[in-house]
Amino acid sequence: MEANSCNNHSNVGFRVPARVSRENRTESSVVNVAGVEVGGTGVVVIAGPCAVESLEQLSDTARAVKKEGARILRGGAFKPRSSPYSFQGLGEEGLKLLSSIRAETGMPVVTEVMDTRQVEMVGEYADMLQVGSRNMQNYPLLKEVGMTRKPILLKRGMMATIEEFLLAAEYILNQGNENIILCERGIRTFETSTRNTLDLSAVPMLKRLTHLPVIVDPSHGTGISWMVPSMAKAAVAAGADGLIMEVHYKPDQALCDGYQSLDPENFAGLMNELKKIALAIGRKIL
Amino acid sequence: MEANSCNNHSNVGFRVPARVSRENRTESSVVNVAGVEVGGTGVVVIAGPCAVESLEQLSDTARAVKKEGARILRGGAFKPRSSPYSFQGLGEEGLKLLSSIRAETGMPVVTEVMDTRQVEMVGEYADMLQVGSRNMQNYPLLKEVGMTRKPILLKRGMMATIEEFLLAAEYILNQGNENIILCERGIRTFETSTRNTLDLSAVPMLKRLTHLPVIVDPSHGTGISWMVPSMAKAAVAAGADGLIMEVHYKPDQALCDGYQSLDPENFAGLMNELKKIALAIGRKIL
Amino acid sequence: MEANSCNNHSNVGFRVPARVSRENRTESSVVNVAGVEVGGTGVVVIAGPCAVESLEQLSDTARAVKKEGARILRGGAFKPRSSPYSFQGLGEEGLKLLSSIRAETGMPVVTEVMDTRQVEMVGEYADMLQVGSRNMQNYPLLKEVGMTRKPILLKRGMMATIEEFLLAAEYILNQGNENIILCERGIRTFETSTRNTLDLSAVPMLKRLTHLPVIVDPSHGTGISWMVPSMAKAAVAAGADGLIMEVHYKPDQALCDGYQSLDPENFAGLMNELKKIALAIGRKIL
Amino acid sequence: MEANSCNNHSNVGFRVPARVSRENRTESSVVNVAGVEVGGTGVVVIAGPCAVESLEQLSDTARAVKKEGARILRGGAFKPRSSPYSFQGLGEEGLKLLSSIRAETGMPVVTEVMDTRQVEMVGEYADMLQVGSRNMQNYPLLKEVGMTRKPILLKRGMMATIEEFLLAAEYILNQGNENIILCERGIRTFETSTRNTLDLSAVPMLKRLTHLPVIVDPSHGTGISWMVPSMAKAAVAAGADGLIMEVHYKPDQALCDGYQSLDPENFAGLMNELKKIALAIGRKIL
Repeated sequence: MEANSCNNHSNVGFRVPARVSRENRTESSVVNVAGVEVGGTGVVVIAGPCAVESLEQLSDTARAVKKEGARILRGGAFKPRSSPYSFQGLGEEGLKLLSSIRAETGMPVVTEVMDTRQVEMVGEYADMLQVGSRNMQNYPLLKEVGMTRKPILLKRGMMATIEEFLLAAEYILNQGNENIILCERGIRTFETSTRNTLDLSAVPMLKRLTHLPVIVDPSHGTGISWMVPSMAKAAVAAGADGLIMEVHYKPDQALCDGYQSLDPENFAGLMNELKKIALAIGRKIL
Repeated sequence: MEANSCNNHSNVGFRVPARVSRENRTESSVVNVAGVEVGGTGVVVIAGPCAVESLEQLSDTARAVKKEGARILRGGAFKPRSSPYSFQGLGEEGLKLLSSIRAETGMPVVTEVMDTRQVEMVGEYADMLQVGSRNMQNYPLLKEVGMTRKPILLKRGMMATIEEFLLAAEYILNQGNENIILCERGIRTFETSTRNTLDLSAVPMLKRLTHLPVIVDPSHGTGISWMVPSMAKAAVAAGADGLIMEVHYKPDQALCDGYQSLDPENFAGLMNELKKIALAIGRKIL
Repeated sequence: MEANSCNNHSNVGFRVPARVSRENRTESSVVNVAGVEVGGTGVVVIAGPCAVESLEQLSDTARAVKKEGARILRGGAFKPRSSPYSFQGLGEEGLKLLSSIRAETGMPVVTEVMDTRQVEMVGEYADMLQVGSRNMQNYPLLKEVGMTRKPILLKRGMMATIEEFLLAAEYILNQGNENIILCERGIRTFETSTRNTLDLSAVPMLKRLTHLPVIVDPSHGTGISWMVPSMAKAAVAAGADGLIMEVHYKPDQALCDGYQSLDPENFAGLMNELKKIALAIGRKIL
Repeated sequence: MEANSCNNHSNVGFRVPARVSRENRTESSVVNVAGVEVGGTGVVVIAGPCAVESLEQLSDTARAVKKEGARILRGGAFKPRSSPYSFQGLGEEGLKLLSSIRAETGMPVVTEVMDTRQVEMVGEYADMLQVGSRNMQNYPLLKEVGMTRKPILLKRGMMATIEEFLLAAEYILNQGNENIILCERGIRTFETSTRNTLDLSAVPMLKRLTHLPVIVDPSHGTGISWMVPSMAKAAVAAGADGLIMEVHYKPDQALCDGYQSLDPENFAGLMNELKKIALAIGRKIL
């Protein structure tokens, strides 16, 4: 690299937006998701199926991941699918299933909201609202979730720069909602052997630039279930405040993303490994 | 992701070349670099300056990294620089300095070779030859180093797919040289806050597809010294067989890449952390 | 390229969605935008400011572009801005200005809709609804505009593959709205000297795969006003059915994207050149 | 785009190297390739097979392209192939065939040189030396061809920025060789329906920044023969000083890249269309 390009690399090349900036709030923010704290010294694991499919599927999967130490349940009711002919999710029926499993297990639930008109309804069922990768620059949606006081799980767009990611969070904060968790989930590159390229360098970069918690999604980040354990461990070693992973009680029967879902047995093995990595860096799995 | 694209993601989408493929050699290869084994249960740390600048610089840096546990010394004598007006390296004079420090410290040395005409000469001074990122698809050079029996450190091209990376190694193996270490060093993406995007998912992917050892360069992979420790720990957690890192006794005076070089104190702290991560996954820093 | 990868290149590697596919409708579709036909033998020019700013700005710009041969007026009332602190557009006030200039000049107008809740209102003012790049995978929005019978200008996401672009159009068609115009507007790559990389190969590719009209936006595609003429000419030579370009009566005073806007004089010169290119390929500027 | 990022887009963000810069030499350079001038008012077409395969193949193809107006013959004797098991070219035997066809047809020939050790030999047979995409940052090779006075066809690396491309040319100029022709040949992006993404915006960008001639390779830029005519026309409309295209007398029997090669009949049709486009912008096909 050239001497004359040093300056491009000694700093990040942009101004960090005011409200998300760690310069203006040096202490790390802790987001409370119905009793589970994300962004403190502990590392939080969120797990569950890609899509809510049935009571049995959700219940069995939820109990399995809870037993191994997952603290928050994930599951999609409204699914953003590239094709109009793919399974689009159960909709409100899926939200009701999530709500009933929450009552059964005591786990807070996170689910995606895709439409400004659904924010209120989804907020009645879920403890945390996810803004998905494809909606990271859906500004009306960012403003709408910013007007709630719900925790928001904001996933990085698959082609969003770190600057744009922080600006998207700023949209939410600017509406008064400070409960934001950032999630790295893989970016799009020329490489095709993995579904996306998980950008783990985003973890230390974001932790330095913003006070918001940062978690990682190794399931979408790789798209291949056998890669999830390696990348989950790497994410914790890199300093992530949590993980969100797809687990399905029967991955080969999943209606969505089965090839990137762990089964309960693999998930259990991974949780044991994660505990050791967390201890090695002076943290613990919550 | 769509049901109809599942098949694209359940496998890697290409045929792994025969000689590098783990299908044809299930046991992991161990490459012996003048007595240091890379690819076994231990994790090897390679460290040193970007470029060899002077006897004092190389000697002080080498002794500092050796003291903290680095096993192999790196240092460039021929430097591939984007601009013809940047420092191009000391050339053979640099090789002589490397050789004298090897004699002084007992550390094997690795240095880059850029030209087919230099392979023999560089091989006389160095224990391992590096083929740099920009030359990963320089086929005459791959063939030439393939005709030696020296260990080859093959860095992934910044634009190379996993398939092309394996094919480049196949070129070397096809000439009869089996002593190849693969190195992930960051790929080029749209993200500009880091110099490159370190693709740590390449580690489990390569370990699954090939029997060759895989190491990671978090210095070039991020381009920012304060990010190196996080990504070095993540690389070990992801399963890397080693690390290659830039350390300079006085980074702010470096003629090349100072902004991504650790100083000896930071390097010492990092080595302590790496030992804990290695233990957490059942390995150790050699 | 290797013999064994020939197959990857002799076809596009995915199945074209049924309703957009030219296999199922060999004749090119012509979309009628309030009397202006897009997708026939003529080439249609859409021009106007990035954002509607004032009556004077819109009126002066509209009359200038109409005089030189633009057939449809563009202008944003709701603007998707990366930062919450940037000018967000005049909202419904901007729509009213567009409507009054339409009455004055007789030019149909196209403007962006960002929120499912605004589709009905925007449709009352505009002749064509634009779904912007950041919303190309906003599926509720695609469905909502699909339920209207308005012409839809669907811009390619800056990170969207050709396959995903066609699937987004399929979402609209699947709701019964066949009035879709596709717009290539630049994709995100590693190159930073231009704002985006205008992918003109998308023009022949899309024209072969789908019956829908395809236009090009060289203003966003390059982000630099002096590059717009070259790329506009290239787009017509490549077979585009139209162009959408930013023109501002006083670019240096624009509230948005002034550096990529042509002034009326440059626009006039370009229109003369475009007429010659169109004739050279047997078409004409409408 | 944001107000605060305007500055990033109103200029190219880097300093153009001194010797290639148009600031230091405002007049466009014309490179004389054995009597054919590239970079003047005319547009030059270079055509021929990907690889030299046999006397019959080269002779038939050369006569066909010459008849339709190609002025320079291309053909690879040393081929950079991703796999060591692919056809690697005929080597010096291929150079001899090129030389004999040059004598027969009077067409100057261009062929690739991959190794510093071959520069002298290739220079004895060829009128112009090509430095291929994979070697754009092979600095020893750039220096070696810079020490000749042969015309050099420098292809853009598939992941090289405009800045790096210009710096590569600067390496050659810095050795005293001013006879450089730049060639855009497609860059690597996330898009997979084409082999590469042809970046035609590189043409006006390079023409503005440097005095060197700029040509385009639509064959490698798309990888699909039916796309070549559209992109060739677009390249000329964008201001390219020439084209280099793969033509094979029997594409379905080609040992290399047949799926992107035109047959003589399609090439003839394309040349007719190119003449019209050239006239439309006030130039002519030489």
